[in-house]
Amino acid sequence: MALIVQKYGGSSVADPDKIANVANRVLKGYMDGHRMVVVLSAMQGETDRLINLAREMGDPPDPRELDVILATGEQVTVSLFSMFLKAEGVHTTSLLGHQACIYTDKAYGRARIVGIDASRIKELLKKGRIVTVAGFQGVDEVGNITTLGRGGSDTTAVAVAAALKADLCEIYTDVEGVFTTDPRVCKQAQLLPKISYDEMLEMASLGAKVLEIRSVGFAKHYNVHLRVRSTFSEHPGTLVCPEDEEMEAIPVSGVAFSTQEARVSITGVPDRPGIAARFFEAVAQANIVVDLIIQNSSVDGRADITFTVPKGDLLRTLEIVQQVGKEVGTREILSDEHIAKVSIVGVGMRNNAGVASRMFAALSQAGINIMMISTSEIKISCVIEDKFTELAVRVLHDAFGLDQPRVGKG
Amino acid sequence: MALIVQKYGGSSVADPDKIANVANRVLKGYMDGHRMVVVLSAMQGETDRLINLAREMGDPPDPRELDVILATGEQVTVSLFSMFLKAEGVHTTSLLGHQACIYTDKAYGRARIVGIDASRIKELLKKGRIVTVAGFQGVDEVGNITTLGRGGSDTTAVAVAAALKADLCEIYTDVEGVFTTDPRVCKQAQLLPKISYDEMLEMASLGAKVLEIRSVGFAKHYNVHLRVRSTFSEHPGTLVCPEDEEMEAIPVSGVAFSTQEARVSITGVPDRPGIAARFFEAVAQANIVVDLIIQNSSVDGRADITFTVPKGDLLRTLEIVQQVGKEVGTREILSDEHIAKVSIVGVGMRNNAGVASRMFAALSQAGINIMMISTSEIKISCVIEDKFTELAVRVLHDAFGLDQPRVGKG
Repeated sequence: MALIVQKYGGSSVADPDKIANVANRVLKGYMDGHRMVVVLSAMQGETDRLINLAREMGDPPDPRELDVILATGEQVTVSLFSMFLKAEGVHTTSLLGHQACIYTDKAYGRARIVGIDASRIKELLKKGRIVTVAGFQGVDEVGNITTLGRGGSDTTAVAVAAALKADLCEIYTDVEGVFTTDPRVCKQAQLLPKISYDEMLEMASLGAKVLEIRSVGFAKHYNVHLRVRSTFSEHPGTLVCPEDEEMEAIPVSGVAFSTQEARVSITGVPDRPGIAARFFEAVAQANIVVDLIIQNSSVDGRADITFTVPKGDLLRTLEIVQQVGKEVGTREILSDEHIAKVSIVGVGMRNNAGVASRMFAALSQAGINIMMISTSEIKISCVIEDKFTELAVRVLHDAFGLDQPRVGKG
Repeated sequence: MALIVQKYGGSSVADPDKIANVANRVLKGYMDGHRMVVVLSAMQGETDRLINLAREMGDPPDPRELDVILATGEQVTVSLFSMFLKAEGVHTTSLLGHQACIYTDKAYGRARIVGIDASRIKELLKKGRIVTVAGFQGVDEVGNITTLGRGGSDTTAVAVAAALKADLCEIYTDVEGVFTTDPRVCKQAQLLPKISYDEMLEMASLGAKVLEIRSVGFAKHYNVHLRVRSTFSEHPGTLVCPEDEEMEAIPVSGVAFSTQEARVSITGVPDRPGIAARFFEAVAQANIVVDLIIQNSSVDGRADITFTVPKGDLLRTLEIVQQVGKEVGTREILSDEHIAKVSIVGVGMRNNAGVASRMFAALSQAGINIMMISTSEIKISCVIEDKFTELAVRVLHDAFGLDQPRVGKG
């Protein structure tokens, strides 16, 4: 008999029939003798509906009050879900964020969980109840309602699993699990039976959005075993867990990509200490997240700096960079929105020589020019022209043998 | 500078524009220097929408979980309202039932307020904030969400006003106030500048539903001065307050009526102690509320008992009565759904002789037969054929001079 936390996303609880389907799935686990805690998101589309309603009262809406209205989305789902189970004669109790004692800081709209008092959940489990917890929401130290931001229900599930020392945290979604790459781009994409926390973090942050990234970091920190799987099938999905030898034997686990970034190049920057910092401090102050940064070797006391930012922030970034450029003196400021970032990820690359050269060779053989390169311990990213995105993904997927079905303990 | 609690019903906050209109009204009071607490209902139609959603999960829905989903209605309204005020630069804070510390018993769906800890509201008022409280909802001693039943927001407002010792509690609705009778039935109906708690209780329970009846009892108990007025005009409406000499000088304040009841007659009941009780105990056990009861004098050791019940409960009542009738022996059991109850209400009738005879004479002159009569200290009710309802109301309205415009301090 295990203690299992299951989280179901908005598409899994999109209407009463789907909620009933989820309830039957939970019931199956309960009948098998497991202790079950269920974390639910708002019904698909509900959060957007509430945001639009809020915007009619003033845009942007007040952050505290926006969290009050957004929290109703999950409140509706947990009550409907519990009603269904109770109508089936099952003992169950729904808990909202404040009732489940999910304490957060007071950063409305993007609050961080600072602690969970799981005693009420434990007490209800001891009574044999299925406990349903509203995802995405918490309460600050003085009782204000907070929300955790998009994808926050994943974090709720992992945090609850950590607080309960659950045996497993299952994240149910509308895909079968984590794939070697996006199946819409590469038909040969294979389901991964398992993936390490670090690989998942790299995959998620690179745009393969199956799991909310904060929840993965949380799971790693508290060693919560996560299973990502589909609400609409019986496939076991992907286990996200600590690294093991099996994973380390595979140099590359997946290919991720993003076309959401733009490139900014500043040429002829005086190569003196503190000059680069002035640009990036100014950009950071505007709350713009810089991803890749490359600076080449200096020539004649001047260097070129290239970096990427989210496309939506490009115009503001250029304004800031031009302003700083005037102060420190540069040659040119260039930008390019037509770029893509393609990355290979794998814990195995630590022990496998030649992974980078194989990547570059594969892209080169396909006639794809590499504009920027950035590497980390378990990831190599290349910036290329965006028109080559799909081609690059397929070429890399093939080059690292990712089109072979994976078998593993999962 | 006064402390004013204002309550706005569902039709007053039916959409974002109407919520903005309400906010501007509240703001006017605030700018005039008053301390303002606002109690809001769910947007018109929202509670029904949520109930229908709940029914899809199992009918009847689990009471605890139904309260969880219903509470979202007011949660949405208070947040939208507060967003609007904050967008206007006004300091305001919304409080849900549990945040406002509105404690109730655990009778889900019809909870009673057992206490309010007003310290948080007082603290926010001290900071110069407008405080917005979600109506209709509370929290039991272990933190479960409860709701107070239909019209519960009126009770919330009165209870908050009592806890704060507010100078005034204004109930805003879509009518101008309390009328001498229903203006849809009698065009000469006049707005009452004021009415006593007891008269209001009789008027409300008789079907003139402007205020939720529990809230009037609460207001009387705590001596909260209530003003019923329209959200959509500047008319001062009706003050509901303790009796005064001015009220006592008027024999009849209003004419109420109801066509929601049915009549049951049991003839030939053995006239022995305890027999009548057996019928009414059985009916009460089925949670059926009996209104009028009349028993005539016994003839040959047998009596006739007649009483009224809500129409929706008639069939169940007849089953019960037939069962008991078999056990004790009766002649006949008859029922009639085509009845109406017409009542005159007024604290002045205590000191005015001949009010009853004037009522009976007026009905008789109009050719209306009286089937049952019931009197209380400040009310006389007659049951008549329902086809005469409107005629009876107009005749009585005229007979007691209610068609003359009222003037009063209000």
